Parts: sequence; C-alpha cells; structure tokens
Amino acid sequence: MSKLASGRNQKRNSKLLDLFNSSLPFDKKLYKEDIKGSLAHANMLNAQGILDDKEFKKIIDGLQTIEKEIEENNFDFDISDEDIHMAIERRLTDLIGDSGKKLHTARSRNDQVAVDFRLYVQKSNRVLMELIKQMEEIFLDLATKHSSTMLPGMTHLQHAQPINFAYHILAYMSMFKRDYERFESSYKRNNISPLGCAALAGTPHPIDRDKTSKLLGFDAPTINCLDSVSDRDFALEILFNISVLMMHISRLSEELILWSSSEFSFVSLSDEYSTSSSIMPQKKNPDVPELLRGKSGRVYGNLISLLTVLKGLPLAYNKDMQEDKEGVFDSVESAIISLEILKETIKTMSINEERMRSACEVGHLSATDLADYLVKKCGIAFRDAYKITGGIVADCEEKGIDLSQIPLDTLKGYDSRIGDDVLEYLDLKNSMNARVSQGGTSTMQTEKQIEYFKGWLDEI
Amino acid sequence: MSKLASGRNQKRNSKLLDLFNSSLPFDKKLYKEDIKGSLAHANMLNAQGILDDKEFKKIIDGLQTIEKEIEENNFDFDISDEDIHMAIERRLTDLIGDSGKKLHTARSRNDQVAVDFRLYVQKSNRVLMELIKQMEEIFLDLATKHSSTMLPGMTHLQHAQPINFAYHILAYMSMFKRDYERFESSYKRNNISPLGCAALAGTPHPIDRDKTSKLLGFDAPTINCLDSVSDRDFALEILFNISVLMMHISRLSEELILWSSSEFSFVSLSDEYSTSSSIMPQKKNPDVPELLRGKSGRVYGNLISLLTVLKGLPLAYNKDMQEDKEGVFDSVESAIISLEILKETIKTMSINEERMRSACEVGHLSATDLADYLVKKCGIAFRDAYKITGGIVADCEEKGIDLSQIPLDTLKGYDSRIGDDVLEYLDLKNSMNARVSQGGTSTMQTEKQIEYFKGWLDEI
Amino acid sequence: MSKLASGRNQKRNSKLLDLFNSSLPFDKKLYKEDIKGSLAHANMLNAQGILDDKEFKKIIDGLQTIEKEIEENNFDFDISDEDIHMAIERRLTDLIGDSGKKLHTARSRNDQVAVDFRLYVQKSNRVLMELIKQMEEIFLDLATKHSSTMLPGMTHLQHAQPINFAYHILAYMSMFKRDYERFESSYKRNNISPLGCAALAGTPHPIDRDKTSKLLGFDAPTINCLDSVSDRDFALEILFNISVLMMHISRLSEELILWSSSEFSFVSLSDEYSTSSSIMPQKKNPDVPELLRGKSGRVYGNLISLLTVLKGLPLAYNKDMQEDKEGVFDSVESAIISLEILKETIKTMSINEERMRSACEVGHLSATDLADYLVKKCGIAFRDAYKITGGIVADCEEKGIDLSQIPLDTLKGYDSRIGDDVLEYLDLKNSMNARVSQGGTSTMQTEKQIEYFKGWLDEI
Amino acid sequence: MSKLASGRNQKRNSKLLDLFNSSLPFDKKLYKEDIKGSLAHANMLNAQGILDDKEFKKIIDGLQTIEKEIEENNFDFDISDEDIHMAIERRLTDLIGDSGKKLHTARSRNDQVAVDFRLYVQKSNRVLMELIKQMEEIFLDLATKHSSTMLPGMTHLQHAQPINFAYHILAYMSMFKRDYERFESSYKRNNISPLGCAALAGTPHPIDRDKTSKLLGFDAPTINCLDSVSDRDFALEILFNISVLMMHISRLSEELILWSSSEFSFVSLSDEYSTSSSIMPQKKNPDVPELLRGKSGRVYGNLISLLTVLKGLPLAYNKDMQEDKEGVFDSVESAIISLEILKETIKTMSINEERMRSACEVGHLSATDLADYLVKKCGIAFRDAYKITGGIVADCEEKGIDLSQIPLDTLKGYDSRIGDDVLEYLDLKNSMNARVSQGGTSTMQTEKQIEYFKGWLDEI
Repeated sequence: MSKLASGRNQKRNSKLLDLFNSSLPFDKKLYKEDIKGSLAHANMLNAQGILDDKEFKKIIDGLQTIEKEIEENNFDFDISDEDIHMAIERRLTDLIGDSGKKLHTARSRNDQVAVDFRLYVQKSNRVLMELIKQMEEIFLDLATKHSSTMLPGMTHLQHAQPINFAYHILAYMSMFKRDYERFESSYKRNNISPLGCAALAGTPHPIDRDKTSKLLGFDAPTINCLDSVSDRDFALEILFNISVLMMHISRLSEELILWSSSEFSFVSLSDEYSTSSSIMPQKKNPDVPELLRGKSGRVYGNLISLLTVLKGLPLAYNKDMQEDKEGVFDSVESAIISLEILKETIKTMSINEERMRSACEVGHLSATDLADYLVKKCGIAFRDAYKITGGIVADCEEKGIDLSQIPLDTLKGYDSRIGDDVLEYLDLKNSMNARVSQGGTSTMQTEKQIEYFKGWLDEI
Repeated sequence: MSKLASGRNQKRNSKLLDLFNSSLPFDKKLYKEDIKGSLAHANMLNAQGILDDKEFKKIIDGLQTIEKEIEENNFDFDISDEDIHMAIERRLTDLIGDSGKKLHTARSRNDQVAVDFRLYVQKSNRVLMELIKQMEEIFLDLATKHSSTMLPGMTHLQHAQPINFAYHILAYMSMFKRDYERFESSYKRNNISPLGCAALAGTPHPIDRDKTSKLLGFDAPTINCLDSVSDRDFALEILFNISVLMMHISRLSEELILWSSSEFSFVSLSDEYSTSSSIMPQKKNPDVPELLRGKSGRVYGNLISLLTVLKGLPLAYNKDMQEDKEGVFDSVESAIISLEILKETIKTMSINEERMRSACEVGHLSATDLADYLVKKCGIAFRDAYKITGGIVADCEEKGIDLSQIPLDTLKGYDSRIGDDVLEYLDLKNSMNARVSQGGTSTMQTEKQIEYFKGWLDEI
Repeated sequence: MSKLASGRNQKRNSKLLDLFNSSLPFDKKLYKEDIKGSLAHANMLNAQGILDDKEFKKIIDGLQTIEKEIEENNFDFDISDEDIHMAIERRLTDLIGDSGKKLHTARSRNDQVAVDFRLYVQKSNRVLMELIKQMEEIFLDLATKHSSTMLPGMTHLQHAQPINFAYHILAYMSMFKRDYERFESSYKRNNISPLGCAALAGTPHPIDRDKTSKLLGFDAPTINCLDSVSDRDFALEILFNISVLMMHISRLSEELILWSSSEFSFVSLSDEYSTSSSIMPQKKNPDVPELLRGKSGRVYGNLISLLTVLKGLPLAYNKDMQEDKEGVFDSVESAIISLEILKETIKTMSINEERMRSACEVGHLSATDLADYLVKKCGIAFRDAYKITGGIVADCEEKGIDLSQIPLDTLKGYDSRIGDDVLEYLDLKNSMNARVSQGGTSTMQTEKQIEYFKGWLDEI
Repeated sequence: MSKLASGRNQKRNSKLLDLFNSSLPFDKKLYKEDIKGSLAHANMLNAQGILDDKEFKKIIDGLQTIEKEIEENNFDFDISDEDIHMAIERRLTDLIGDSGKKLHTARSRNDQVAVDFRLYVQKSNRVLMELIKQMEEIFLDLATKHSSTMLPGMTHLQHAQPINFAYHILAYMSMFKRDYERFESSYKRNNISPLGCAALAGTPHPIDRDKTSKLLGFDAPTINCLDSVSDRDFALEILFNISVLMMHISRLSEELILWSSSEFSFVSLSDEYSTSSSIMPQKKNPDVPELLRGKSGRVYGNLISLLTVLKGLPLAYNKDMQEDKEGVFDSVESAIISLEILKETIKTMSINEERMRSACEVGHLSATDLADYLVKKCGIAFRDAYKITGGIVADCEEKGIDLSQIPLDTLKGYDSRIGDDVLEYLDLKNSMNARVSQGGTSTMQTEKQIEYFKGWLDEI
C-alpha cells in the first residue's frame, strides 16, 4: 500500500503485497505522461482558483525537478509507492510540502492512469505512423527501380505467372498503407481526454475539463466518466493494429527467408544485417527476417492477453486492469524496432535480377497466356481452352521442357486454330506486360500504381 | 479436384482429398454474393464486348435459376465441386452450355473468393451497425427513465460512490458507440473491389474494373492485384471489432448476473429470458447473460485463428487462406444473435430501485464527500482530509454503522473545523448530485449525456 | 426452456431464447454417450432397488429404440428440448411413460453433460492415439528406405550439414511420439467418472458410483462432486494436445510445401493428393499441406476460446460452460481428418533422391568438417579452426565454387598443418557418416534410431 | 554478431542488428544453467580425453569465477555478445586463454540453448510442484476447520443447495491436484538431455551423451538430434500447465472478490493483503484476487505466443525460436508469485460463518430435498415431483418467504401424500447432510474427502 493512500486500513501491507501489487517497475515508463498530465491539471486548478499562483508555481517547479531527477537517474523508485502516480506525488510533497498534496484535488489514480496510458498510446500511434511512412518510402524507391524486373509470381508457392518485382513490392505497400490508415483511424477515434473523471463519477470541484483536454492535445473531454475510467479500447486497438502490421511483416519476412535460400537466391541480405553460426563457419543466416516473423507470436499474445483480462469485468476500475500496460509497451517497442530494422534490411539487400528472370523459365508460366490466346484468337470458351492447355503442359512435363520452349509446329499440332502469333503470347516478357488491366502487373500498370503511392505519400 | 478445373493433373483426386479440401460445406453460405459478383462480371463483359447480348441474357437467366434452386433447396451441392464458385459455374454450364464457360473469362477463383467474402463482410458490418443502433435506442430508453435512480457505483466490486442507474447505462452506450464507429470505419476503409484481379497479376482481357466496382456497391477498385487476392485485413477487422463488442457485452453480462443474484437483487430478468434447472425446482437462472459472457471465448478464438493462419504466408493466395471463412461466419452470427437477445433481455428485465437505493447505505459511500468537505470548507489539503476521513470510517466500521448515519456531534469531535453544513455533504442524493463536473453522475450532467447520445442516434 | 424442466418459471420461454440457449444443434453429436451413460445409470438404479426390473427393462428397450431412431434419422430433434439429455429423456417418456421420468432420479444435467462430454473426449484420445500410431508406421517405412539418402540439413533455411532423409523423418517420429504420450497421459489422468455428482452436491439417493464408473469404462469415481460438475480440464488438455500435434504437422507441411516447389523439387506429391488452378492450366498445387498448415489456426483458436470461457467462472456450473463443446468437436475432427490425409499424402509422394543429393553440393556443407579436421588432426582450438574455415569459405564464395570442390593444394596453402587426409573430411557422404555420436545423422546411428522406434511401436 | 562467431561474414554487424538480435538482455537469466551445462560438457570432454586434466581444471576454475562475477554483479554483459552462451565463452577465453576456446568442441549454441532452457523449465516444474503442495496444505487446514460450515452452493450464481465450506474448498484442492499431476507428468516426459546434439546432426567427436545426461540430472539422452535442437514441446507444456493453473486461480479469485463484496460478506481479506483507494478513504479493495484473476490474460497470451512462433517452422533451428524464452520466464514468475500471495491471502482471511449460514435461508435451497422427499416417500416420479415443487416455490416467492419457512399444513395442502416427516427434509442442515453419496457434501463424505487428500499429500 502506498505511504500516501492508507485510508481506513490499519495495518501496513505485507512486503509480498507491495511486490505483487506494485506497477511501478513497469509504469515508471509513463513518468513523462504523468508529469504532463499533472501540469495540465495544476494549470486548470489554478485557472479555476483552486490552486493560487504561488502553489501553482511551486508545483510546476517541483514537477520539473522530478522530471529531471528521473531523466538523470537520481529518482528513488520505491516499490511501496505502488505506481508512478504515487511515486511522483510523494516526491512532490517531499519537495514542496502541502501544495503537493493539493494537486490531487479533483482527480483519482483511476483517471490519472487513464490519461497517462492514453497519452502513451496516442504518442505511439503517431510514432508508428511516421515509421510506416518511412518504410513506404523505402519500398517506393525499390519499386521505382524494378518495374521491369521479372520474377515468377506465385500462388501456393508454385510458379504461376510472370510479374515484376516492383509489383510484388507494391503489394506490401498496399498492406502497409492500410496499416497506416488503421493507426490513424484509432488515433482520431480515441483522441479524447479522461482527465477530470476522478474515481468513477466525476467530482464536485469546479473543474474545467475542456481546458485540460486542450492542454494535453486531445480533441475534447470524454462523455461519460464511468466509462472513461474503465475504457481500454484504445489499448486493444493499438494491440490489434500492431498484430496486423506484424502479420504483414511476417509475410514479407517469410519471402525474404525463402529468397535468401540457396534454392531461390533471389536476394542477398547485406553482411551488416546477417548473422553467422557458432559451429558452422560457412553459414550466413537471415536472422533478421526470422526474428521479425517470430515477433508475430509476441504481439498476438499481447492482444489476446488484454482481451482476456477485460472479459467479464464489472464497472468500473478493477485491479485486473493493471495488467493492461506491459503488453502494450512490449508490442509498441517490438513494432518500432521491427520497422527500424526492416527498413535497413530492405535498403541494404541486393536483388539478383538474373536469378529472378531465369526462374521464370521454370513452371510453364505462360500457360494462362496460351489459354487466353485460345480464347481471344481462336474463339474457344475459357474452360475448353484451359483443358487443351492442361494437356499441352502435361506433355511438356513428360518431355522435360518448359512451355515457353515448345516449337511452333508442335503447338499447332494440338489444335488447328493455333496460328503463328501464338509465340508472342508465350514470350514471358510479353506475358507480363499483357496484364494491362487496372491494378495488373504490366510495367505500364505498375508505374501507374507507383504514381498512386507517390501521391499518397506526398499527402500524408 | 473440381470436375471443371482438372488442368494438367492426370488422375482424379481421392475422395478423401475432396472431403478435406472442399470448402463447399461452408462457403455455400456465400451463394448470394457469388451470384451477385457473377452478374456484375457478366454485365461488364457484355459492355466490353466480350460476351454478346445473347450470351449475357443466357447467363443472367441461368444465374437467377440457380439462385432460386438454392433458395428452394433444389440445388445439388456436390462436394467434389470444391467450392461455391465451381458449384455454380458447373451448374450454369449444365443449364446454358458454352456461354456458362465463358463467364470465367478474365477472372479466377482467387478474385471470386475475395469478392464474395468481402461482400459478405461488408454486409455484416452494416447489419451489426444497425443492430448496435437498435441496442443503443433501448439503452437510451432505459437511461431516460433512471437518471435519478441511485445505486452504489463500484470499483473493485466495492461500493465507491453513489451514482444513478442511467449514468451506469450510459457507460455502456459509450462503449457501444465506439463499437459502432469501429464497424463503420472498417466498412469505409475496406469498401473497395478486388474483382478483375484474376489469379494474382491482372488479366490481358480488356475489362472495366470501375464498372464492376460500382455495380457491386464498392467505392473503387483495389490498387494492386497481388495484394488484393491475398488481403484478408477486412476479415481480421470484423473479427477484432466483434471481439471488442463481445468483450463489452461480457462486462454488461457479468453485471446482469451479479445484479440477478440473491445477494444483489438489483434487477430481475423476465421469465421469458430466464431458464430453470433439471433437478432444482426453485432455480431461475440467468442463462442469457452467462452464455453472452461465454461467447467472448468463441470470438476471441476466431480472431486468433485467422491471425495464426495468415502469419508467415508468402504471396499470393495459399490454400491456408481457405480457413478464413468459418470463423468469420461464426463470429458474425454469434454477434447478431447476441445483440438480438441482449436487446430483449434488457427491454424485459425489471429494475429493483428500492434495492439499488438501500444498497447505497452500505459501504460509507459519502466518504469522498466528507474528504471533499474538509478540503473545500475547512481548507485542508486533500491528502490530509483523506487521512482524517479514513480514520472516521474505521471507527464507523468498528461501531457497525454507515458513515451517512454518524451523528453531527460525533463528527465535529474529529476535527474542530467541521461545521453543521457537513450533513449536506453526507446525504447520499446530495453526494450523487454534487458531481456536476462534465461527464459526472449528477442527474443534471447525466441528462446532458442523454441529450448527447440522443443527438448522435438521430444523426446516424 | 425444456418442456420437462419448467420449474418455478411461469411463462414459456421466448423462441429467441430457445434458439440462443439450445445446445441441441451441436450436442446431439453426444447421443451415443448420453445413452451409454443412461444405461449405466439405469443399471445401477436397478441394482440399488430404485428401479424395479420391469421399469429397468422398459428403460433399456426405450433407450435402444431411441438410439436406433437417431441412427436412422427418424428422431425428431426439437430445439426447445434445449439439449440432447432432455431430448432423449422427453422421447423416452413419450415411449415408456412414467418409468422414463424415474431415470432422472439422482442425477442432473450437470453431471450428465460432464459424463457425456468426458466419454467423448476419452474416446477421441484413443482414436487419436491409434491414428498417430498408424502415422508413425508410415514414417517408419519411409525412414527404413532412406537411411542413406543424403539431403542438406538446414538451419535458418540455409544449408548446414549433410544429413540423411530417414534422419529427417525420424525427427517427426520423435515429435509424434511425444504427441502420442501426451494423449495417453491425459487419457489416464482423466479417466474418472463424474456420474452421480448430481447438480453440485451429490444426492441423498443410495447410489453406487463405483458401479457406474466401472460400467462406463472409467477407473474410479471422481473425488469431489462440486469440482466434477465444473471441471473441464480434460477438454482443455485435448485441445492443447491437438494444438501441439497440429503445430508439428504445420512444420512438416511447411517442409512439404517447400520441397514441392520448383526451387527445391525434393519431393513430388501424387496427383491424387494435389490440386489444380481454375485459371492456370499448368499448376499442381500442394493444397493438402497448405490446408494442414492452416488448420493450426483453428485448433489454437479453439484452445484459447475455452481458456477464455473458463476464466473467472465461480463454482459450480455456469451456462458459459455450454461453449465448451463445439471447439472440442472441431479440433478433434480436424485432427482426425488431418492425420488421415497426411498418412496418404506421405505414403503416395515420391522422393527425388537425385535432387536431394545434388543440393548437398551447394552451401559448403563440409565447412564444419573442415573445422573439425583442424581441431582433431592439427590440434587447433575450435574457435580458431572456425575462423580459418570461415576465411576459406569466403574465398570459395568469391570464386563461385563449393568447399567440397576446392583443390588439395589450394587448401594446404591456407595452413601448413593441413594434410592429404583432409579430402576424406570434405567428402559429403563421409561428412554425414562421421556424425556417429548418439542421436546423430550417420547411417549407423540413424539405423539405431529406427530400431528404437520400431521397438516402441511394437510395444504400444 | 558475436565477436567470437564471425565466420565468413566480412563486415561487422550493425549496432541496430546487435540490439535487435541479442537475447542477452533476457537469456542472462540462464547463466546458472549455462555454466552447469558447460561443467558437465567439460567433465565429459575430459573423461573422453578431448580435454586434458590441466585444461579441464582451468575451465572449471574459469566458470566458477564467472558464476561469482555474475552473482556479484561484476560481470560485463555486452549486448554484442548476442547471448549468454557467447558472453560466458568470451569471458572464459579472456580468463584462461585457448583452453576456453576448446570448451566449444562438439557442441553448438543450438544444443546449448536447448539444454539451458530445458534445465530452467525442469527446475520450474519442480518449484511449482512444491508451491502447489504448500497451497494444498493451506487448503487442507482450512477445510479441516469447516466441514460443518454451511453456505449456499451455487450454480449460475444462484443459490442451489446447501453445502459446507470445506467441500467448496476441496473442489479447489481437486483442481490443484490435477495441476500438480500435470507439472509432474511434463517433468517426467521431458527429462531427457539434448546436450551433444550439436548444431543439428550430432558430431564426429567421440562424446559420451549418457555421461552428460546423468551429470545434469536427466534420465537419458534424447533420441534424434535434429528434433532435439528444434523441440520446444517442454516449453509449451509448462505454458499450458500454468495457463490451467492460473485459470483455476482466476475462478477462486472471482469467488474471493464476490465473497468480499458488501453484498456477500462471506469472507474478509486481511488488511495486510488488501489495499485502499487514492481518493475514496473508505475503500478496502481486494486487489490481490483481482490481480490474480487478471494474470490469466498474461499467461494465456504467453501460451498463444509460443504456439504462433512455432507454427510452420521448417527444421531445424530458426531464429524465430529465440522468442521462446521471455514468455516462459514471465509465466513461471507470475505463477510463482501468484501461488506465494494466494497462500498468504487464504491463510490470513477471516471466514464469516454467520453470513454464510444466513445466506442459506435465501433461495429455497431445500427445494430439491422436497422433490426428493416426494420421490422417496410418496413414490412420485422425479419429473412430477419436480413440477409440484416448482409450483410451491412459485407460491413462496409470491408470499415473500423461503421454502424452509413454509408451515407444515400449507405444505400438506399441496399434496395429500406429504407427511410430517417432510420437515426433516426441509431443514437446511439435514439437507446438506443428506447428500451422502460418494463425493457428496454431507459432513461425513466431506471428511472422507479430507482424508483422501491428506493421504495424497503425505505421499508426494
């Protein structure tokens, strides 16, 4: 139990309880937010005549001293203070006496923690938006260079159709754009201030919630205080948004790992962002994408943790809710370092264009084009064209050649309607560039997509 | 393997594979969306000259026949058709011959499933928004009647401060409003059309994606086809939004269960929405809120399932993604019936105002008011006032009385600064109505909140 | 509400409640277990003199009739019966009158559902053990053929050291063996009978729980009835055991997918267990392992669902617990079909030994051997040997050759202590067979492991 | 990249990679296990003649010095060492030169981490078994005192039948006994040594895995090295076992919270293990059980995290697996402190027997007894008896009296077969003690259960 808030309890709490109960070991991370919230609260109390100017001045000085002490590692964090709010309040009272105690007028730890945590989450939303933007710029650079670099587009990890590498990168740009939009949407929806909600029911003191809301950068005060002190939707949202972001990163990571294998060799990670083995001297391991892929576990876990904690809690604040913070801190920090290192990894990797191209000659990538040819030029219904092509491919397999290498005469032998122009359709580059429909992989359409993303990045 | 799509494979698939692989048993639920998508596609193919008017007419007729067959249970679902798309295409070809085969020009099952599933999710977003709105109206009705109905506001399931029942209900209105906004935000962000993306790379056919997008009620076509066929963010979003909604419902349910217990007796569920025991004849069980509370498990599970499925998948479509649908169907249907039955349960329950009021006389609910009195009237710093009050409460506990019943003289004995006006502060109704800060529980502030929500409901 | 159990409630339940509340749509799957439990209960009631012989005979006949009706689809499942227990009891009363009602003496739906569900889970444990055993036998067959088939052992998806294919398969045998043991351990720990626990407190009727326990194949009655009616640990255990099993399967599936890709081409799935694309005629897709990999999501979700449901439930039975069954049914059925199809897929796939072998010539697989040579033959400390080898590999990379191809003279140039015998160490087959430590990959050690697993399979 | 293991990579790793990649900040917790493993390995290398006596002596001394340095906080943890294994190896080489480098002969970080982590998990299994045992002893003490203390047994949080408090506590003893058994079972199944597996394939060095296995307290070496370096089943098992344990604790916590509320007042937590509010001086909050209930979220999250990480990983070691430790550490530490504080909380709480008893007079707890009376004494079928009783209860409700208070004459009026002896059945204590079936709540049966658990505790 905090030294300050002893209330009706007559005995000191056990040390074990202090250890179990205290959130200070992790919520001290919120010291900046806590001081920011206290400054806004003090400012308002002063404006409302609850604190006089002298008291207000003392409080400001005291809080600034405390901030400095913490930043310089001179602050004594005592676990029996229970949380960062009490730790700062106790120190403030040490420093400035009774005025420190007055700061707690018209507020409760319930709204303090709601404010601090929300400020942290909102700041994190903005940081992640900025990092995603930087990531997108790196993707855009890469795409710009590779709108003609052909590689086998895959489904089911089987070669499907030839696409270009920029087009592939733009798929990730699309995902990260949605991620950006989700963080932005959560930021806007949750940019409201719980300060002044007190324990659960508001306060009789003549406070001004509009003022503190504005001072803290929120759009408005929250509507209902009972909800405000027990609302953690904003925390769930960032945990979910990070989960989806890390899922996208896990997909890209899987591809980087595949592409770095001997078998694929489509890309080569830089030595700076690769690692070695303690026993096998020849190894160069893609630890970065592997660890990025693995981080999905951690952030999914954090999401399910908080959902579980909140399940079935009656109103309003319950101590269970103290379990809300560590997972969010962990997910936010994981997402930040993941984006930082992904940026560098992508920037420094080298692209093996020749391997990408030659891989297109495996797997009969122009089979769909042959079917399309039969539809367009020979007037055969798609399903029939599909069957004819299937038969030709089966023959190729038997002969051990790729469809793109089949002689014209042999082809004509399959169906009399096939003409000389079929060869154009079987050419791999043509095949890629034939996909001119909106959003398609032809270089022309890919470049349009690049323009679109460039425009978007300029805007945000 | 589908009878239609046999391609290069030379042997028929095993029956076991048909059984394992087929999504038909669950994706037949998408038949309406599939037919809608096909109609839009056919319309566009016709406008682009790929289908002539006769073929187009045949296809429309065929699809309408199929829709009717399915609705009248006359459609033969054959598991070897693998999925609803193939089942409908096969039947269409049975009905109208070669024109049916032509419908598949310029599209793939990959974009078909993306379209169908997205249409389903978007429809569900709208249905859930409507149901939440209806729920909010019921909450509003209830709140309107109870802005003076006092009950103990709780934190840690301990009596904290007197609040009114409307104020408590408005906390849930606040949660459900955020739920509404999340569904709306997801709806808007994801209202884009993947149709025309084909397998992964677009198509050489001269299609018009703007047209199909418009016909299907989407805002625009998607930007990058490779992303579009492997994007399931819209599904994750509805799974998350439902998880948060059901978490909110689990909290309300917990309270309904508590309030229905002998110990609380704050509300009584109607017989129509209660159940009995097979062995204990006296029982009247709150099965509805219990089951509602339990449904959180199911929807959390569905969320984590899809997140797990998508982790580490390379681009583009992989068969793993077939696992995306059942969980979404289950969560959507669970959310719909949960809202339906919650509406009725809330509407038909009776409120025991007398028990709520008398419960306020337990737990020294005006302790904070006494502390506030000491601050405001006696100029004592809050932390000191808090300690004095703590001591008085401890004495009351010993004597077995509630703080609101303590005689004036005894009170004055604790501190000479205490005056006669302290009794006003200790009055429970006064205590509640003293909380006049914005968002607080006083009847006056509660009514303002009611107005706010009324305004919001009028708008949406 | 059930037609039978109306108790004190005066009004009929709403149809919506029937729909929401009824578990009949899914728990009818337990009809066999329910009848089995009722037969045991009736038998005991008869032995204890609670049912006379005539009543007992009638009940047996009635239950057998019902079982037949259900199996022949002649049973009328009416959702208002609420659950399978009530459905059968109602029908029994229809068939045999008052004797049917007497069957419910000394039991409650709470212990009925506990018995039925536990019987189902125990049966499933045994079925899964049997299927795992069959799977292991297929692995063993495969391993027996391939204890000299070399392929590159990988870490980080990078070539590491040459191993043999049997050795690789035995890694999965090890995992599946642990799976078997977990199912077995759960089976034994949970093989106790809750029958006779009644609602929560036991019963005043002179029942014989030892008798029913024995009749149902349990080892003993449970110890405490309050626990027994609210214990779902056995369900959590099977959900967890299936999650680990499917995680193992997802790892094997990932490898099958990789090995089926053009890039690897280590194995080729049979046409019977492969699929095709609707648009790309050349595709042969590994749908089976992909879907198997994806099933992990589903079973993880089911585990987290039930954990969530049970969190924070007070004793004893709460309606939330009705949410326990669907997830278990789904996980069990998923695991069963997954093992069935994995068995066939493994049995029918072909192994491309030549591709496996030639892949060993890429990636300097004998680098560790060279380091080991330097340690063993030249007396160099491992860390120094590691560095020397690292330098040689870097040179090889630059020259574009594999370490196994480096000329002897060049090698000797790196360190004067290197002798002619180094070539033996660099030979890939030698490298593999050098790993003779217990559990290692040499053919000799691999064959010992095969013997071990053969012995184990003979025993179980 | 570690300073030691630089291999073929030519450039130093980036600082960002060091920061991202290093597991040292958390795996330093394994320093004891790492040193223990190294001592065993050195001992074996010496016995096998790979290390001479002098080298061996130096290594022992060096490792002991390092252990002391770490324990006295004199060890310089440098993040670029990447992990605890490399940190210790580097320091050892600093201390004793080349002999330090030789220690890494015939092992790899892959088996080192497998050994260290397994040793930690096995130790944790034993610690948790011991703590559960201590918890059980406290439950047993409590039960011993309360085998006649009557309270309302509940289902659906509604009064059901009178039970005794010991019986209620024994339900938790049953759960914790299963927990104990699960930890024990996992301990036994996983007590095998991966040491000597090297990177993935074993080693050519003439090592003795039996010896190191024995030295480390394992039962035997593992069977297949490829599996051993990528097996994390033991970690999943402890995460699951802790999840179930914490789920049980969450149920007990929910009850402690309910019982501590004004409405129930069945128990009163000691001041030492309660907390207060920062704003409401009268509050005494059950923070301990609330936080215990909330810890379920954390441990469920850790379980799902590792399941997610392992999904779809190809063999053998992948860097994703580095994500295995933090969650396990967190779950283990959470479980340990949770058991510690739960023990004290239960030991120091006071039981309000009078409130428990008087609560039995609410809710017609003897309704089932009346029905049983009608069956046993009047020969009415249970279902009919149930209906009659239901009607009587409904009348009582209307009159506002409890069934136990209904006058004899009134009762007889309902059915002529009712005799004077019905009153015995309606007596609450009789009702409880009537439940004499095995496992039932009568004091006699409860005491038998106490004996059973006492016997079990004596054995383990």
